[in-house]
Amino acid sequence: MTKINPLLTAFHQTKYPLGGHGKRNIQVLLEALQDIDGNMESDMYGNGKLIEDFQAEMAAYLGKESAVFFPSGTMAQQIALRIWCDHQGVKKVAYHPLSHLEIHEEDGLKELHHIEPVLLGDKDRLIRLEDVLQMKDEIACLLLELPQREIGGQLPDYAELTEISAFCRSHGIKLHLDGARLYEILPYYQKSAREICELFDSVYISFYKGIGGIAGAILAGDETFTKTSKVWKRRHGGDLISLYPYILSASYYFKQRLHKMEQYYEEAKELAALYNQLPDVATKPLEPVTNMFHVHVNMPKEKLESLLVNLYEATGVGFTHYVREINETSCCYEVSIGDRYAHVPKDELRKAFEWMDSKLSVR
Amino acid sequence: MTKINPLLTAFHQTKYPLGGHGKRNIQVLLEALQDIDGNMESDMYGNGKLIEDFQAEMAAYLGKESAVFFPSGTMAQQIALRIWCDHQGVKKVAYHPLSHLEIHEEDGLKELHHIEPVLLGDKDRLIRLEDVLQMKDEIACLLLELPQREIGGQLPDYAELTEISAFCRSHGIKLHLDGARLYEILPYYQKSAREICELFDSVYISFYKGIGGIAGAILAGDETFTKTSKVWKRRHGGDLISLYPYILSASYYFKQRLHKMEQYYEEAKELAALYNQLPDVATKPLEPVTNMFHVHVNMPKEKLESLLVNLYEATGVGFTHYVREINETSCCYEVSIGDRYAHVPKDELRKAFEWMDSKLSVR
Repeated sequence: MTKINPLLTAFHQTKYPLGGHGKRNIQVLLEALQDIDGNMESDMYGNGKLIEDFQAEMAAYLGKESAVFFPSGTMAQQIALRIWCDHQGVKKVAYHPLSHLEIHEEDGLKELHHIEPVLLGDKDRLIRLEDVLQMKDEIACLLLELPQREIGGQLPDYAELTEISAFCRSHGIKLHLDGARLYEILPYYQKSAREICELFDSVYISFYKGIGGIAGAILAGDETFTKTSKVWKRRHGGDLISLYPYILSASYYFKQRLHKMEQYYEEAKELAALYNQLPDVATKPLEPVTNMFHVHVNMPKEKLESLLVNLYEATGVGFTHYVREINETSCCYEVSIGDRYAHVPKDELRKAFEWMDSKLSVR
Repeated sequence: MTKINPLLTAFHQTKYPLGGHGKRNIQVLLEALQDIDGNMESDMYGNGKLIEDFQAEMAAYLGKESAVFFPSGTMAQQIALRIWCDHQGVKKVAYHPLSHLEIHEEDGLKELHHIEPVLLGDKDRLIRLEDVLQMKDEIACLLLELPQREIGGQLPDYAELTEISAFCRSHGIKLHLDGARLYEILPYYQKSAREICELFDSVYISFYKGIGGIAGAILAGDETFTKTSKVWKRRHGGDLISLYPYILSASYYFKQRLHKMEQYYEEAKELAALYNQLPDVATKPLEPVTNMFHVHVNMPKEKLESLLVNLYEATGVGFTHYVREINETSCCYEVSIGDRYAHVPKDELRKAFEWMDSKLSVR
């Protein structure tokens, strides 16, 4: 049984939640299906027009030879790394200490694939070119996550990215992109998805993060790579007879939201600036480079939680549904801008930040 | 690109296909969602009322302490066997040579879990009590598939089943049920699902086979078992943020079709009897014990295919969408009775079999 969480309850009652696209309810699927012809045939174990067309569309978008739809990124990325390890004859890969594979997957990579990760760089910063150059271990593949979610969605400069890519190419190291939020980085880099993906041998993108679909992922690369990935998809139990609920919703929200990434990015910068005017509050990064950032507050978690509950009741503006403790005197939460932000009246937003400012200033 | 298949094309144009519930098109999902409230909240990584309620309902139906929803049976069963192997400290399991794990999963069990299967019994018959008694290998778990699909959906006697179960219990061997088609065996055994599942330590059931849902599976057992299975589900990449499209459709069609299993079974016996009156044709088993059976024909595959195309054009009755070659002079196909059969007028059915009889008799 789930315990009652006053912050979550209060957040759900706010009129103006600031982050995300909307509630994750069944309406998300119903909307995606509203104009779908019921006579359209299901995909069948990875085959059929419905899945093949979408895969071809995504391969073209990413500038890769071929693409495969997966139920999850967890599955797609473990498989990508396994393929590169088998290809290179080396059971070692490198990624950031806070990579999804390291902290959210119950060690699937190690337990199922017996691949040893080399944790590159530090927990509180990006992987840098020097980290790659100074790497002592022989690895099959380097995984870069753009943006690096767990540190607020930070990005290296494009120049550094190309240098890392060039180094990997010249040293026979495969480069894999954890591009769960690939769309969200394009406005900052002012590059197309193809231009970013060109630097990588394989790419994973997600459809429920920035895109706001239901679930599902694409893994893209050359034909040999994606063909092998289908064998592993079957082995993992991901080659479902029908994946169409995820494919149709991915396709629908991709079209709905891809062109809004620039808007989300600008809005994230605007909101971060408001946060940074508050005493004892700072965003990470200070100026967002995507539609996301983290909010760090010098205050014990419980204290901030009850302050936020009061804020929501006083103003109807919802800052976050959760707070994560950093230590006894500070805490943080993630903000990710989606469709909702544009619907918040500027006046209500201003009032909410004024309310917070008044409370934080008198402490 | 898919090659044009004349038999499949002709089958799709028949007015009266005999097998299955209907076309696997998007309408299957739309129908399941028709009365769903859009405000219902999504499941979130295995949590939430939507998934927890369904899991509890299925645990109760199966008479097990606990149940977990999985995207696929491939994933659920590999995980079940892995848990039992880890529990027993033995990396060996036993199953039928034509088990799904052996022929349809690209060796996922071996490649991901390094579990060695002992193939028990022969390809053309069921696993018998003697096979189990005479087993030389030390195994962690025995997997039984009821009914044994690849040999036409055969079943052991209930008495033999209880003896196998008792032997496993007394020898510390875990017994797992591949119950993809569990519902379909209940009319023959005249037992409840609980009574069958009682004989097993863990059970997997499917929602797109007899039930006709979109995809998805349940794995059930005791609390410790299912709790561990959730960790492996995460590792496999099956712990999707939202599984509700599969859960809602599983729940909908479960309610629609569970009570029809007796009807499908009776219809399967009726249809098999018609087949067995044809020259050079025999069903396996001769009298079905579930809603499914295989049709064996003493005729080269290509010859039967063109005969079937002619049958479909002449009578509008669709026997099968494919034929599998056994050898140069014989072939077979699977029949699985669902909703469609009841809609075929008896007169049209009789005419179709008369047509076949006339063609086969004059050869």
